[in-house]
Parts: sequence; structure tokens; C-alpha cells
Amino acid sequence: MIPFVSRANASNQSIWIAALSASMPNEVVVPFSELTDDQRMQCDLAIVANPSPQDLLMLPNLKWVHSVWVGVERMINELVSPSFSIVRLVDPELTNTMSEAVLAWTLFLHRDMPTYTQQQEQVIWLQKPMVRAKDRRIGVLGLGELGQVSAKRLVDNGFSVSGWSRRAKLVAGVQCFHGEDGLGQLLSQSDILICLLPLTPQTKGLLGEKNLSLLPFGAGLINFARGPIIDDLALLDALEQGHVSHAVLDVFMQEPLPSDHVYWRHQNVSVLPHISAPTHPQSASKIVADNVLRYRLDASIPEAVDLNRGY
Amino acid sequence: MIPFVSRANASNQSIWIAALSASMPNEVVVPFSELTDDQRMQCDLAIVANPSPQDLLMLPNLKWVHSVWVGVERMINELVSPSFSIVRLVDPELTNTMSEAVLAWTLFLHRDMPTYTQQQEQVIWLQKPMVRAKDRRIGVLGLGELGQVSAKRLVDNGFSVSGWSRRAKLVAGVQCFHGEDGLGQLLSQSDILICLLPLTPQTKGLLGEKNLSLLPFGAGLINFARGPIIDDLALLDALEQGHVSHAVLDVFMQEPLPSDHVYWRHQNVSVLPHISAPTHPQSASKIVADNVLRYRLDASIPEAVDLNRGY
Repeated sequence: MIPFVSRANASNQSIWIAALSASMPNEVVVPFSELTDDQRMQCDLAIVANPSPQDLLMLPNLKWVHSVWVGVERMINELVSPSFSIVRLVDPELTNTMSEAVLAWTLFLHRDMPTYTQQQEQVIWLQKPMVRAKDRRIGVLGLGELGQVSAKRLVDNGFSVSGWSRRAKLVAGVQCFHGEDGLGQLLSQSDILICLLPLTPQTKGLLGEKNLSLLPFGAGLINFARGPIIDDLALLDALEQGHVSHAVLDVFMQEPLPSDHVYWRHQNVSVLPHISAPTHPQSASKIVADNVLRYRLDASIPEAVDLNRGY
Repeated sequence: MIPFVSRANASNQSIWIAALSASMPNEVVVPFSELTDDQRMQCDLAIVANPSPQDLLMLPNLKWVHSVWVGVERMINELVSPSFSIVRLVDPELTNTMSEAVLAWTLFLHRDMPTYTQQQEQVIWLQKPMVRAKDRRIGVLGLGELGQVSAKRLVDNGFSVSGWSRRAKLVAGVQCFHGEDGLGQLLSQSDILICLLPLTPQTKGLLGEKNLSLLPFGAGLINFARGPIIDDLALLDALEQGHVSHAVLDVFMQEPLPSDHVYWRHQNVSVLPHISAPTHPQSASKIVADNVLRYRLDASIPEAVDLNRGY
């Protein structure tokens, strides 16, 4: 018996339970709400999708939870010293989808699609000067799995790519920066900046007035990570001044983005409804099933999130 | 003395002459209009950019012309049995730029950018179902240099790619069709169709009512070749019925696209001002210079256009 713990009103809970059950014919996956008191006592493992963290405290013998989301910041923030391990989803299919989104919206900015859309609205026929990919400097914030694969894909498609991470990393073909000093260097040479950082106390508000001002004038910005990494007022100011020419935002402080938010009607902002790398229930369930099977065989738990780092 | 022959009012003639002169310090490149009668008689070679074909008939001893445009259909159509060879521009830089545009606007359609732009205008937060690149069938019309490199780039980025050409060709990783029967097969399995054909009597109007109807319902269309290959009324009808969901058009029957044309205000058409693969005067002039130098050395002329095929 493995409970599936999601938000109370999650509309796709039944899709997930069906996909997980199909991938684990020897397990019984049930909604958290249907557990008896006895069953709650026995649970050593739960599968979770952005759960209310308090629900997990009702499972006192939990050894680990397997998230089907990549981001697990809510559990980390709201649970004080949890007695169980938190395992994130690492899905090659999702990584591939994210790197595709990074490439797609980098090309969107690189080939001036926002300008041509605006020109069409105004019935203007005007060619922007062509910039070669090798002359377009792309900066990738975050060199975890998603960042590394995305950076490599940009390199494969001819761009000049730099990357930044908290600790030093080496990625073939990518100029790597790290730490506080490295961040300034990366920002100052990023014609297009792509945010793929995890949300942690250190990254919250990282893209605020000071750091946005370090970008070259007219830079493009893509946020495929988490909304709170950007200081919205600072970004709106940078857009107003033209310091940032266009922002592609897939994530927001509040989702769905409230209908009265200024981003919706901003001509230099592309609002996306959190679609850069959707989890495929079928694909993710296979990953979860493999991890659960290994746990049943030898009690081994996949590499868990480091609670201090936050990812 | 090499004349540069462009349209009478071409605004970029001086840019071209400067770039050509810089690449060929041992040659004198002059505007066609400045030639004396004697100089006209002596010319065996001209460099041309979409010239008025009649101008070329005033150079009776011409052996060949080197076009700095890829498309040379106007000369072929308007000159009856010219006594000189017509050489097209084959520029690897331009091929790379075109394949980048093909990838960029394929991703534009693949990742539903037109829908998300429309949803933003209507303040709608709604995720479209994700389609994996390998499940998205791309059809490339035309397997010349531009088509082959573009098809390979789509394959490298995970798409399922087919291609069609008049005569049978083999391209690694691409399902190749040819001839009349092959065209129907390709169209019927192209979720996104990309036109990279030369304009010839055979391709004029090729994408008309019958052939557009062979596409899967809701297909996307990209035309980076020449405007007259598409029958505009048939395309508008297919868009109206939803049979074609969105068209990305970079080329038109008349360019610039007249300001009263219905395409400008069609919400399912993206109008681009002929920017898929602009010629770089510097890059193209180097190619021309190499060919001219070889001609001066041993009188060899690069492979010319086949006047019967039209490319």
C-alpha cells in the first residue's frame, strides 16, 4: 500500500494513480485521503505531487517520499527536520523536454520573433540585422541536470554558451563560472539569460535590481525555474528602461498568474502557463516504479535532496 | 572590370560593391549603369543581384553571371536561351542560417507559441498537451543543399523527418520520397510542412487546394522558399477551415507584402519580412571572390543552373 499525496483539489490525481498503478502491478497505490489509521501507521513510503507538507506528518513511519515533481521547495521550506528522505524526480524525458524549451525560446529571442510579431500588428515590413548564433552569448543560471543538458543543446546549435552554478563545475563546450564573483561575470556577458536554478533561500530574489543591471543593455531573459527567483518590480523597471528587451516567463510568484497582473498585458513579456517541461505521468511513473522496485529488493533509497542546499 | 547588376533602385548596391571590392582587391567592380559602351563589349563576367534580365542582354560577350542571390528564377524565366551561364550563390553560412530558421519556426509551431500568444492576449492560463518531438512528423519539401541541411538539423533535434524531392535522393535519418506519388505520401504524414523548393514552372502553385487537402487536419505550414509556390486563396481557405492551423510565411507573391493584404491581420498567419536566411554581403563576397579568382586562373566556371530544371 503506497499513498499518493497531492494537493487536496488536484484535478489530475486519478491520472497519476492510474499511471502509477499500471507501472507497478505488484503495488497498491491509493489516494492519501482513503488511508485508514492503521494503514497510515504502516506507511514507509509515499509518492507525492506538491503535497500539503502537513499531510506527510500524519505518516509517522515514513522512511522516504518520492516526488513526481522536480521542484520540492515547498516540502523543504515547510517541514522542520523531516524524519524521512525526499527524493526528486529525475526523468531523462523531462530533461529533454526542458532543453527543447530552452532552445525553442532562445531561438524565439535570437531570431527576433517578438519584434516581428509586433511589426505584423503594425503592418511594418522591416528586416532586423541578422546576428549569427556564434555571436549571440547565452548565459545559463544553474548547471544541474537541466542546466547542463540545456547548455549542451545550445552549444550543439551554434550558440556561445556560458553557465553559472554555486559550486565550480565543468561542462564541455561551456564557459563555466561559479560563486558570487562568477555571477557578475556571467551576467555581464549574457545577451540572453536563462534561469534554471532551484528555488532556495539563496536564489529567492536573485534576479533583482542589482543583478539585472549587470546584464548587457537590451538583453533577453527566460525564466523556466521558479517565479520567486525574479524580483518582479525590478524586472518591470528593467523592461521599462529597455535594459531588458524581452522576458519569457513560464513561472510566477503565484500560479496561475492572477488575471489582473501587469505581465499579461506587457508587450515585452511572453506569459507561458508553466509549460516548459511538463511531467508526463507515464514516463515519470516508470522512473518511480524502478526506484520502488529497488527499494523492495534491497531497501535502498535513491539519492535524496540535501536539506541544507535545498535541492 | 566587373559590372554589378542589380535592380535600378536597389538601396544596398553600394554595400555590395564595397564588400565585393574588399574581397577582390585585384578587380574593379562598378555599377552596371556606369559602364561605357566599350566596357560593355568587353565584359565576360557580371555579378548580379536579382537584375533586370534585359540589362544583361546589353553585355554581348558575357560568358557567365554570378548571382549573389540563391534564387535566380527571374533570369531563367525572362531570358530565352541565354548565351551565358548562370551561377547561383552557394554559401555555407546562408545554409546554416536557413537551417536555424527552419528549426526556430518548427519549434515555434511544435511548442504552440501561436496559441500561447493568443491565450496571453485573452488572459487565458491553459496548458496544451505536450507532444514529444519524436511524435511530431515534419515534412521538408525540397532536398537541395538548404533542404538537406535543414532536415538533418531537425533530426538532430529529435523530430521525425521526411523529405521530398523531384528526383530520388538519400539523406541519412530522413525518410525520402520523390515524384508525384511520393508527394502525396509525404503530405499525408506531415504535421508540420516546410517548403524549401526552388520556384520553377513545376512548383508554381504546387501548394494549392488539392495538395493542401492531403495534409493531416490541423497541420502547420512554413514557407521559406518563394511566395508563388503557395496558392494564397487555397491557403486562406484551408486556414479558414482549420485544415491548416497556422502558417509561417516569409515570402510572398509581392514583396514587401502589400499593406492591405489579408495575411497581415490573420491571427493564424505569421508574416515575416523575408528574413529566414538573409545574404551577408561580406560572407557572400568571399564566395564570389574565390570563384572569380579560379576563373581568372584557368577559365573554369562554377557549376551553373540547369535551365530546363530551373535551379
